[in-house]
Amino acid sequence: MTVRVGVIGAGMIGQDHIRRLTEVVAGAAVTAVTDIDGPRAAEAASRVGAAVLPSGRDLIGSPEVDAVLVASWGPSHAEHVLNAIAAGKPVFCEKPLATTAADCLRIVDAERAHGRRLVQVGFMRRFDAGYRRMKDVLASGALGAPLMVHCAHRNATVPESYTSVMAAQDTAVHEIDVLRWLLDDEIVSAQVITPRRTSRRFEHLRDPQIMLFETANGVRVDLEIFVNCQYGYDIQCEVVGEAGLVRLPDPAAAGVRTAGRHGTAVPQDWKERFGDAFDAEFRAWTASVASGAEPCGPSAWDGYAAAVITDAAVRSLESGGEVVAVGLKPRPACYGGAAA
Amino acid sequence: MTVRVGVIGAGMIGQDHIRRLTEVVAGAAVTAVTDIDGPRAAEAASRVGAAVLPSGRDLIGSPEVDAVLVASWGPSHAEHVLNAIAAGKPVFCEKPLATTAADCLRIVDAERAHGRRLVQVGFMRRFDAGYRRMKDVLASGALGAPLMVHCAHRNATVPESYTSVMAAQDTAVHEIDVLRWLLDDEIVSAQVITPRRTSRRFEHLRDPQIMLFETANGVRVDLEIFVNCQYGYDIQCEVVGEAGLVRLPDPAAAGVRTAGRHGTAVPQDWKERFGDAFDAEFRAWTASVASGAEPCGPSAWDGYAAAVITDAAVRSLESGGEVVAVGLKPRPACYGGAAA
Amino acid sequence: MTVRVGVIGAGMIGQDHIRRLTEVVAGAAVTAVTDIDGPRAAEAASRVGAAVLPSGRDLIGSPEVDAVLVASWGPSHAEHVLNAIAAGKPVFCEKPLATTAADCLRIVDAERAHGRRLVQVGFMRRFDAGYRRMKDVLASGALGAPLMVHCAHRNATVPESYTSVMAAQDTAVHEIDVLRWLLDDEIVSAQVITPRRTSRRFEHLRDPQIMLFETANGVRVDLEIFVNCQYGYDIQCEVVGEAGLVRLPDPAAAGVRTAGRHGTAVPQDWKERFGDAFDAEFRAWTASVASGAEPCGPSAWDGYAAAVITDAAVRSLESGGEVVAVGLKPRPACYGGAAA
Amino acid sequence: MTVRVGVIGAGMIGQDHIRRLTEVVAGAAVTAVTDIDGPRAAEAASRVGAAVLPSGRDLIGSPEVDAVLVASWGPSHAEHVLNAIAAGKPVFCEKPLATTAADCLRIVDAERAHGRRLVQVGFMRRFDAGYRRMKDVLASGALGAPLMVHCAHRNATVPESYTSVMAAQDTAVHEIDVLRWLLDDEIVSAQVITPRRTSRRFEHLRDPQIMLFETANGVRVDLEIFVNCQYGYDIQCEVVGEAGLVRLPDPAAAGVRTAGRHGTAVPQDWKERFGDAFDAEFRAWTASVASGAEPCGPSAWDGYAAAVITDAAVRSLESGGEVVAVGLKPRPACYGGAAA
Ligand SMILES: [Mg+2]
Ligand SMILES: [Mg+2]
Ligand SMILES: [Mg+2]
Ligand SMILES: [Mg+2]
Repeated sequence: MTVRVGVIGAGMIGQDHIRRLTEVVAGAAVTAVTDIDGPRAAEAASRVGAAVLPSGRDLIGSPEVDAVLVASWGPSHAEHVLNAIAAGKPVFCEKPLATTAADCLRIVDAERAHGRRLVQVGFMRRFDAGYRRMKDVLASGALGAPLMVHCAHRNATVPESYTSVMAAQDTAVHEIDVLRWLLDDEIVSAQVITPRRTSRRFEHLRDPQIMLFETANGVRVDLEIFVNCQYGYDIQCEVVGEAGLVRLPDPAAAGVRTAGRHGTAVPQDWKERFGDAFDAEFRAWTASVASGAEPCGPSAWDGYAAAVITDAAVRSLESGGEVVAVGLKPRPACYGGAAA
Repeated sequence: MTVRVGVIGAGMIGQDHIRRLTEVVAGAAVTAVTDIDGPRAAEAASRVGAAVLPSGRDLIGSPEVDAVLVASWGPSHAEHVLNAIAAGKPVFCEKPLATTAADCLRIVDAERAHGRRLVQVGFMRRFDAGYRRMKDVLASGALGAPLMVHCAHRNATVPESYTSVMAAQDTAVHEIDVLRWLLDDEIVSAQVITPRRTSRRFEHLRDPQIMLFETANGVRVDLEIFVNCQYGYDIQCEVVGEAGLVRLPDPAAAGVRTAGRHGTAVPQDWKERFGDAFDAEFRAWTASVASGAEPCGPSAWDGYAAAVITDAAVRSLESGGEVVAVGLKPRPACYGGAAA
Repeated sequence: MTVRVGVIGAGMIGQDHIRRLTEVVAGAAVTAVTDIDGPRAAEAASRVGAAVLPSGRDLIGSPEVDAVLVASWGPSHAEHVLNAIAAGKPVFCEKPLATTAADCLRIVDAERAHGRRLVQVGFMRRFDAGYRRMKDVLASGALGAPLMVHCAHRNATVPESYTSVMAAQDTAVHEIDVLRWLLDDEIVSAQVITPRRTSRRFEHLRDPQIMLFETANGVRVDLEIFVNCQYGYDIQCEVVGEAGLVRLPDPAAAGVRTAGRHGTAVPQDWKERFGDAFDAEFRAWTASVASGAEPCGPSAWDGYAAAVITDAAVRSLESGGEVVAVGLKPRPACYGGAAA
Repeated sequence: MTVRVGVIGAGMIGQDHIRRLTEVVAGAAVTAVTDIDGPRAAEAASRVGAAVLPSGRDLIGSPEVDAVLVASWGPSHAEHVLNAIAAGKPVFCEKPLATTAADCLRIVDAERAHGRRLVQVGFMRRFDAGYRRMKDVLASGALGAPLMVHCAHRNATVPESYTSVMAAQDTAVHEIDVLRWLLDDEIVSAQVITPRRTSRRFEHLRDPQIMLFETANGVRVDLEIFVNCQYGYDIQCEVVGEAGLVRLPDPAAAGVRTAGRHGTAVPQDWKERFGDAFDAEFRAWTASVASGAEPCGPSAWDGYAAAVITDAAVRSLESGGEVVAVGLKPRPACYGGAAA
């Protein structure tokens, strides 16, 4: 039984996910595509023999579509996700779930009203083998309670269009999600401090930034965001517990000794680094849709929490480094919380 | 267009490949299963909605089968592969291609007569990301010509049924194949020397063994085979060239510091270690079948060469450590050789 | 020409330094020892054939003493160092230089009045091969300007007498000194934030702590202090520059694979971790005394700066985490500064 | 009590040892120097205030010399060592102990006749912290009985005067000694096989070579000797036992990430790699002389065994790769053996 996926948005990410669902993930097929750029939709659809539909609404309503993938422009996410919920269809939404916390909350409310989870948000790190192994180690109890997390998120470079607030919104948001999951804990405050600025990139950009988070359990997180580090795409994460620590592995890389150096290649981008995680993410999503189960990946609530926490980080940056409290609503029971 | 695979042999490996083709590899489906143990075939088939057929011959002839996977008992491989060639159907044969070099050669001859490659042999290491990265480094020329290779192949334990000659036939055969490919060179002699025997396992078994190979280009290979090393499944490979070396990476593993140690887990078996390589192997095979291209993986010739080289290693072991020349036929042009 | 050293303080550290000067460092001999505990002084002296003198003042004045090593109780340091300066004798003072910034400043002023440097303070990390290699890499310019430093200082355990302010005064003080030297920069503010407390140790102790420093050049430092981390003595330091990063190496340790794990031992205490640095520190000091040169190690000014910065960290801790400015006097010219 | 050392031979190695004994090793002083090149002796002596003596015989007989260090031309070693034994003075002899096994045996016999050990041979690796840690691990029993050893000894380059037999005599001899000690076992056969020759160096030289040794306990050793590996000085050693393995650590080196690579520097020569081992070697020797104890380092017997084993390797190389038995005399009781 093949899951028939309709894809909204045929840009770079959308095309990559179409390829993945078609060529990599067993049991999934892309049957419909839509995009505000009609020819782009047509081209992407023709490569996989999918129908081109005029709008997200049409695609969501199509009887040839079992489940929806939203990979369009961020500001359009909320509407498509709400439509999918209204249609009762499973929907995978690339991050962000919505561009405002208020819109995220509308989705949460709609999903609650629907009565069961339909939404998975595209935070792929939860599916990375390294993070999963870290979670296993933490769950084993061998390290005792977690106390601190040290992280770094480095990109070789970003384009000129990248702005200082995107450090939180586009970059740190991955750590925000994966740490909430890894620690099974909630972030309660955020602070952003700004080191000396790199001279190797744009005047307008505060880069690097250091973000500090505190969780409900008192865990302290420091996260370096450095999006023009020049040397590669480098993701570091170390959780320190009462009796030891666990560290995210670097990707396996062939060691080379030549010309006085022993070395390994550093990945150059997130596609290389997290390609397997993307595959696993869609495999898991496809399996949940096929079985009729709720999705096991990040929920609408996780998308909402990420929005509120990144908002706090942005406010801290704009305030010159104040500690900003994270004001999350009570977590509803259907998302594992205590609220009704 | 889904590739419809018929599977001959529903034992442990066959079942694993059925799962892989069904759940992991996009574009493939298992449509028929046969096994000398009828109920076992029925059970495996029912899990994936495949037909149960009475014999390999029936399965190969079925119009519902586009391509054949042979995962049955080794001695039956040659017959099934020859039947598939006779039927003009692509066939993936788990190693060994055949249990004698003579039978391998019959397959090679049949395939040549057919006029194009239909056979892929199940040496999965060529699809492992680490070996592929090594090959890239060698191909870059940064290391100059390869001169030596140091390898180890260690299993935690083997069952009592494992015999001393299996060190070459079942274990070293993986290095024999992957090194021929990695070096793009041919093995011309083999020698087996026997260290002190481990006391942790069976009296009847010569374990460990050290195998020495020489290639046509004069590269010297030493390969430790130690199938009861106790601590895990550990594959090491280092190629030393004129200007440097490259080393197979250990799998990425979370670093843990606790109780006075910094450490990482060692994989416990080959399924864990080479799971991704098996997936990539079948993805590539499926893609070649779907596109109508010749398979890109190990050929019948590679299966034949592996048989002759393992025979030489076995003879060396049985002779008490003589250097045994590898007597390969000239390589036919259709396998990249100079012979007609 | 042997440097004759008089040692003030024959406790654990003093005895270790006596051993080092006698057995390890060429060109040095301990000729006199004093301690408030007379029998302890006598025992330490007798082991190396040194004289026992009744007081620090007598020892400093002895014609058998070329240079003085102060390893007594912290509150007595200032007096001994000032006496040595008054006598015009080189003096090595274990950290702290003095227990108050005011006393440190009195030493700085006395040394300036004397006209040349006589004092070296016992911050041994500047002599550690790993930190020195980091400094070489930074000096090469390959990384561009430093922007951030991530550090951790972990002890397996501390005794019950250890108090929360000692995290700054006794522990972080080593990073404070070595980072000022590594970056060739000055720390201008300090902040201490407190993660969830470990349950594995004392109720009275804030452990771990995270210290944040900013330098004059805008470099941001985060430093984890965790003195009951259980697993070992672990020192981490990573400097991130505009074009790359450099990381302090872990000590070389034999890799062991056994029982499913690949691992290395973590040092258990600072004597094991920094033994070679202590040797190098005293070798350099002895050489400078023998040659009549000013000492190349940490100066009285460095001792003063460390005192002011640790005071700021203590105030931040006690304030609940305020950012506290570091109020250093202008640096005198004789310490490489611009002040008269 | 300072040990007064007389140094025979003031070439490069001799000068380095004079520096070491003077500046690094506590409790030692060089009081006399001789060299066949008089001005060279005078210059070396003058730097440390030592006397220049006309001959080794004069130096050994001098009342100002407590112990002798032989660092002259290899063919002169035996005579000086025999003279020192005749004089009853401790003597440290750089490798080789003598240039023929017969001369080594004369030294062994003379020392036996003297009644106690006076000779230490300059195999410094036994004092390397990494090898010592390996020995500790083996001694702990955690790995069970050793079964195999995999080694590599690589130099960046050698000068044109280096000949093929020096691979055994000058290079492999270090592994031969350290493995005998590490395993507490005796080498009983040697074999040399020759891979494809590197094109990056001299026509006359067989480089690399692979040496295979077998021990009395059946341990099998493979040792890559590659003295023009181009990239650096690289020493690898891995002992595989019944229950696990232990690996010689690479030297601690700062990790650098820049320009797409994570890397560490590889040492460029043996002085850099084993500097600490040389220091420890002379510290131990000086301490043994000072205390009147027999030396703890490699004995005359070890020097003799190394000579016989390297002879066997040379014969194997010259025979085209035959297995050559090592014909050691029975080990005398005073060297831990069973012979009278
Ligand atoms: Mg994503
Ligand atoms: Mg296979
Ligand atoms: Mg100190
Ligand atoms: Mg030596």
